[in-house]
Amino acid sequence: MNLMETIQSIKGVDRNDIDRAQAHLDNLTKPPGSLGRMEEMARRYVAIMGNPPPLLKNKTVFVFAADHGITEEGVSAYPSDVTAQMVKNFLSEGAAINVLAKHVGAEVVVVDMGVNHKFEPHSSLINNKIAYGTNNFLNGPAMTRQQAEESLEAGIQLAKEWVEKGVQLLAPGEMGIGNTTASSALLSVFGECSVKEVTGKGTGINDEKLSQKVQLIEKALDFHQPNSNDPIEVLAKIGGFEIGGMAGLILGSALQKVPVVIDGLISGAAAVLAFRLNPDVKDYIFLSHRSQEPGHKVCFNLLNQSPILDLDLRLGEGTGAVLAMNLIEAAVKIYLEMATFQGAGVSRAEENSG
Amino acid sequence: MNLMETIQSIKGVDRNDIDRAQAHLDNLTKPPGSLGRMEEMARRYVAIMGNPPPLLKNKTVFVFAADHGITEEGVSAYPSDVTAQMVKNFLSEGAAINVLAKHVGAEVVVVDMGVNHKFEPHSSLINNKIAYGTNNFLNGPAMTRQQAEESLEAGIQLAKEWVEKGVQLLAPGEMGIGNTTASSALLSVFGECSVKEVTGKGTGINDEKLSQKVQLIEKALDFHQPNSNDPIEVLAKIGGFEIGGMAGLILGSALQKVPVVIDGLISGAAAVLAFRLNPDVKDYIFLSHRSQEPGHKVCFNLLNQSPILDLDLRLGEGTGAVLAMNLIEAAVKIYLEMATFQGAGVSRAEENSG
Repeated sequence: MNLMETIQSIKGVDRNDIDRAQAHLDNLTKPPGSLGRMEEMARRYVAIMGNPPPLLKNKTVFVFAADHGITEEGVSAYPSDVTAQMVKNFLSEGAAINVLAKHVGAEVVVVDMGVNHKFEPHSSLINNKIAYGTNNFLNGPAMTRQQAEESLEAGIQLAKEWVEKGVQLLAPGEMGIGNTTASSALLSVFGECSVKEVTGKGTGINDEKLSQKVQLIEKALDFHQPNSNDPIEVLAKIGGFEIGGMAGLILGSALQKVPVVIDGLISGAAAVLAFRLNPDVKDYIFLSHRSQEPGHKVCFNLLNQSPILDLDLRLGEGTGAVLAMNLIEAAVKIYLEMATFQGAGVSRAEENSG
Repeated sequence: MNLMETIQSIKGVDRNDIDRAQAHLDNLTKPPGSLGRMEEMARRYVAIMGNPPPLLKNKTVFVFAADHGITEEGVSAYPSDVTAQMVKNFLSEGAAINVLAKHVGAEVVVVDMGVNHKFEPHSSLINNKIAYGTNNFLNGPAMTRQQAEESLEAGIQLAKEWVEKGVQLLAPGEMGIGNTTASSALLSVFGECSVKEVTGKGTGINDEKLSQKVQLIEKALDFHQPNSNDPIEVLAKIGGFEIGGMAGLILGSALQKVPVVIDGLISGAAAVLAFRLNPDVKDYIFLSHRSQEPGHKVCFNLLNQSPILDLDLRLGEGTGAVLAMNLIEAAVKIYLEMATFQGAGVSRAEENSG
């Protein structure tokens, strides 16, 4: 199968499996529905993974890293060297994602999709480098169509390998100075809304630089006239390599029938890209948190889901995703470990209660 | 010291300690403030527990259980026998709180404050039974003033004992058929708002029974004319024993300078009761989640805090509190385990970024 045939072979989740999982939840010693969104997470995990589901033990967050030519235009608060510096920080386990992934028992795998630096080999680093950063997408394409396909295929392949190794929950995280600029551009195209509506302060630029960032994206989109019906072409025009890798991981998770957790703005843009390639991916997606970045809402609207957490995060890396992984794991334990009314000898609600 | 002197001896947290903790967070390899509410949790935990703080290892949720005479009026979807049945379910570890507490590594201690049942001794059950349930507060006081003081003192004593044993984070949970009725009544009094505004469907009554519940509370408050400036008298008039115990645990946590996590409507009512006794308790309180019960908002407004989670929970027991404990623990690890910019050789934001 070629890439598009592979993507078209994704099938959604059976609604009956969700209903059957909810029937079991309603039999546990609690008022029906009283665990709210925990029940929602449990029933969808069960519908995806089988009933009874496996305990959620193996979780992996992939931190896709790449550089962006658009940083030449001064869109970020940080120099682009920080992408490579942070990759090293991930590998020495000093970043937020390392601390939080360890806390929830998730593995961190760093994937070099296109960082402007040559790294020494490392057991937690996968070399999928497509180039030493994208081209500046202001006046030309960020990458070729072939590179865009390559980035998607890399993510699909990672999902396949990790599911074969027994992973039960995946998340795409990222690092790439300049990638909120590319993500806002993608979300504007796929969400069919104004650039202003979907562009935020990223790592922390001031109001003046924010307005420059908006104008720059408007100018670039005016140049490219991207066609949202050809999502791979949109990715090629705007970038970046890590966003392609993340979208590939999301598609690959759906192909392998394993749930995938979306983090912030950038993985939201990747989720929207994957959704535009095949809307059935949404059945496998758990939205972890509501980012402070305004463009994130395009993802919630298109996928018609509310995020699990709202902690004012705007760090990326996969930090919100791993925190939500922990709640999904808790929800699975509720499903598997709670007593039933009959088993525990607890009376059910009285009939007249409605 | 008598009870009121003890309560008056609570002192709030030093703002400078919070600022010093934030200064350390700003030095870690992430854009300043980008971990949002995780940073807020970390800095307050540090300000309470000392800088550097201990890793958050020892966490306990106390499930205070008691029965309510008001159930005679048919306010709940469940028969009042369920209080005792659920206590047994807690002791055999089949309830939601057992599963979630185990997931986050928290100890569950069940405290019989006044269940209408005589339990066999059990290693996880503390017998603080004040009576076999409160009196119906529709036409008379739920308990005597002395019993109200006794319930507060029981909670204060538990906090003291557990802090001496090394606990670093406490939460009051609860079980008591009828206790959303008492809690809504308390929140109406302390929040100075209408009964309708703070009364919800509890374990799941229908619209007709909800309107009866509202009328019943209105009638009771009309009879009692409770004076919100005498919080112990309000507790005595309305109940229940478990709410007094929970308020005591909150006061005791503040006395011992240990943080305490508030769960849903009932522990929210207990928090408001504790706050009315000494507003400085709020510095030690972490609000874990936004319950589906409408009265919960009185707690957020009076304490001027937003809850950490919003998962549409309405189960109680301490379920939301233990989930938030896990996030507080993660926040403490961020504080203690992340690399600094200098340590990791990562460049800081550029000066022109604002």
